[in-house]
Amino acid sequence: MARWQPHAPERLVDAALDLFEERGYENTTVTEIAERAGLTKSTFFRYFPDKREVLFGGDTMAGLLADGIDDAPAGAKPLDAVAHALDAVGRQAFTPDRREFATRRLAVLAANRELREREALKGLGLTAAMAEALERRGVPDPVSRVAAQLGALVMTLAYERWCDPAEETGFGEAVHQALGQVRAATAAS
Amino acid sequence: MARWQPHAPERLVDAALDLFEERGYENTTVTEIAERAGLTKSTFFRYFPDKREVLFGGDTMAGLLADGIDDAPAGAKPLDAVAHALDAVGRQAFTPDRREFATRRLAVLAANRELREREALKGLGLTAAMAEALERRGVPDPVSRVAAQLGALVMTLAYERWCDPAEETGFGEAVHQALGQVRAATAAS
Repeated sequence: MARWQPHAPERLVDAALDLFEERGYENTTVTEIAERAGLTKSTFFRYFPDKREVLFGGDTMAGLLADGIDDAPAGAKPLDAVAHALDAVGRQAFTPDRREFATRRLAVLAANRELREREALKGLGLTAAMAEALERRGVPDPVSRVAAQLGALVMTLAYERWCDPAEETGFGEAVHQALGQVRAATAAS
Repeated sequence: MARWQPHAPERLVDAALDLFEERGYENTTVTEIAERAGLTKSTFFRYFPDKREVLFGGDTMAGLLADGIDDAPAGAKPLDAVAHALDAVGRQAFTPDRREFATRRLAVLAANRELREREALKGLGLTAAMAEALERRGVPDPVSRVAAQLGALVMTLAYERWCDPAEETGFGEAVHQALGQVRAATAAS
């Protein structure tokens, strides 16, 4: 039976990011990622179904967003409920110590189409998770889908600002700036 | 030198869709698609870079959307300029004779994650093309990105309705229904 490996997923993710930066995503094998992390290939596959998935952290984010929307105040407007969830993401996932990793990850994704495809589908999954959570609060379709789509854009804008080396904005603050921009832009559309 | 093959891309797309339905996307090779179309593998690769791409028609749609936004009346609001482009898509691409193909294609996509990933990235490309076309009209970022995101949702809702076997709605009509829904939902978000 496999021995428990402390911090195995984190070590695999860090090793993968290092290798993707050094030699490119295409030129890195799962075996090499596992070796760099001091683990075995079978440990890798215990945590990630394939090489691509190592940069996508499973379904944690969809769960965080759904829980955050569930926890929003009862009378919150749909997009405010999404912003409430994004605040939770800023406290629990996009914390200041993760910013450097996020920036490096974005650069690796930009260089590889397979990774951008996976990212794009994950993004649709997050939007769908937000729409479903809004529907559980009684928000009807298509208001739920519109609010989720706008919420996804708020998330993207905030993530870009948070990762921007020229800025020193926390994710939560970036969310509220982006929310104001998106509300104003919606009125002008 | 290769001989010109009449309607080669259309024949390849039809053959691919037939085979994906019959034996699944994973179990179909490019050679088999070319054979079914009465063409060679090298003809396939003259039109499509890989097996996935055969269901995605290159960059035609991004060009149609950008041209349609360029051609919108000067004073049109951003989302109305997008709707103008979607009308052109309805006249030039999503015509009644393409509806059966679109419905079959959606079913094949639903069954395969690789295809859904490519579709998701293509969708982001269309949204970016719409935002860029709006910026050429002087629409500032992030209004351009918000309008493009809402426009993408209008397109998705209209496409779903157009493909729905229970409905008999033309794409253009479905666009205007969806536009009304998205405007109302935006106000409620």
